[in-house]
Amino acid sequence: MSLRVVLVEPTHPGNVGAVARAMGNMGVSELILVNPVDFLNEEAFARSANNESILEKATVCGRLEEALADCSLIFGTSARLRTIEWPSCSAREAMNSAAMAVSKGSNAAILFGPERTGLANEAVDLCTELIRIPVDEKAPSINLAGAVLIMLYEYHLAMLELSSAGKLNVEGKVLDSATSAQIQGFFDHLEKVIRKVEFIGNEPHISLMRKIKRIFVRSQLTEDDVNILRGILTAVAKKVGGKDSQ
Amino acid sequence: MSLRVVLVEPTHPGNVGAVARAMGNMGVSELILVNPVDFLNEEAFARSANNESILEKATVCGRLEEALADCSLIFGTSARLRTIEWPSCSAREAMNSAAMAVSKGSNAAILFGPERTGLANEAVDLCTELIRIPVDEKAPSINLAGAVLIMLYEYHLAMLELSSAGKLNVEGKVLDSATSAQIQGFFDHLEKVIRKVEFIGNEPHISLMRKIKRIFVRSQLTEDDVNILRGILTAVAKKVGGKDSQ
Repeated sequence: MSLRVVLVEPTHPGNVGAVARAMGNMGVSELILVNPVDFLNEEAFARSANNESILEKATVCGRLEEALADCSLIFGTSARLRTIEWPSCSAREAMNSAAMAVSKGSNAAILFGPERTGLANEAVDLCTELIRIPVDEKAPSINLAGAVLIMLYEYHLAMLELSSAGKLNVEGKVLDSATSAQIQGFFDHLEKVIRKVEFIGNEPHISLMRKIKRIFVRSQLTEDDVNILRGILTAVAKKVGGKDSQ
Repeated sequence: MSLRVVLVEPTHPGNVGAVARAMGNMGVSELILVNPVDFLNEEAFARSANNESILEKATVCGRLEEALADCSLIFGTSARLRTIEWPSCSAREAMNSAAMAVSKGSNAAILFGPERTGLANEAVDLCTELIRIPVDEKAPSINLAGAVLIMLYEYHLAMLELSSAGKLNVEGKVLDSATSAQIQGFFDHLEKVIRKVEFIGNEPHISLMRKIKRIFVRSQLTEDDVNILRGILTAVAKKVGGKDSQ
């Protein structure tokens, strides 16, 4: 039901205040601090710029696990490259999933590590996914409040998008994103039909097919979209006749 | 050929340093300061976090017009609601246009006003467009470096997208976005063909057509995409037979 921002062992009260400001800007209010420094000081309040209530209502935990107990999605943010392989996604993808999960009644969390060291491996172990913010390799270190701001900006946009971009069904429920198998099924179907109508011949046409697929990849199809598009393909195949009309 | 960040009369050297850090994070290096406070102080360097070279190479101007002379796109950022109507767009749309313009060899600029007051109307008059960052109404004031970071994050993503998402032609030139007339032409053509194959009957089917259109709106079609898609529709109509095959 909500997205929470979890700061693990933040060391500067001013940064915690700046995080509260970024949260207020993007309409997110649930802040959890795991073993923070004494964060309710003057600098924190000053940098929160009228978002004192977020600081005052922040939950303080001794252990990260307590903060995450009822979360179904847990995103870790990290600038460090890990030697271990870990599932990772872009900030945009992650916050689209988070908005989707929250709209469906789940809790989601984004974890930010201590300013100097980032999340420890033990914290990363609790994450369902790591988030990459694409940065310039020469100056990759974003400040804590900046990283929070980018994430919550994406979350705020994703929430606005959900309510306006045709991703809600008539009851206001979020439509599921198509799985990659469903998208692949649609692409196979599409290729068969455009060969059938002789838009392309029997040769592979890899570059043209790639262009066509990218149009649909960019639009982030829902299951419903795939069903509609495959319905159109089936109607075309049926009208054109012959076998393989599915 | 580049995107420049223009700070109009910034009043805190620390903020200028934080802007330099955000620029470094996103690989943008051209900073222009119009009538700044003495910005090369210790706090500015500290907050730039190893992006001192951006501060040291910053251009200082006395008049905003000097900073913008060779720019074809000038974006203004402003939290204030203007009483005058002004063309405005989202941060994402603006930075997609900026990336497109820079890839085609033009200069673009984003203007940020003084921290407390924002851009004056005289500065807004020089802008080709105003940018809206969607924020929560209760706490709309984003700090200067945060606003710069969000803009340049979108710019950095748009640049990465241009080089990878099929929006460059074989010579590496950026493909033009389809105009709204071209997109409307495609939608009319699409509707005609899906009626012809009897995917839908003669009734209006407004809600279904809207869903289908949104798939393509979300994918931000290029002219090339529209040509390919209309080629497919023409092939279908031809195969199905009858008149109106185009």
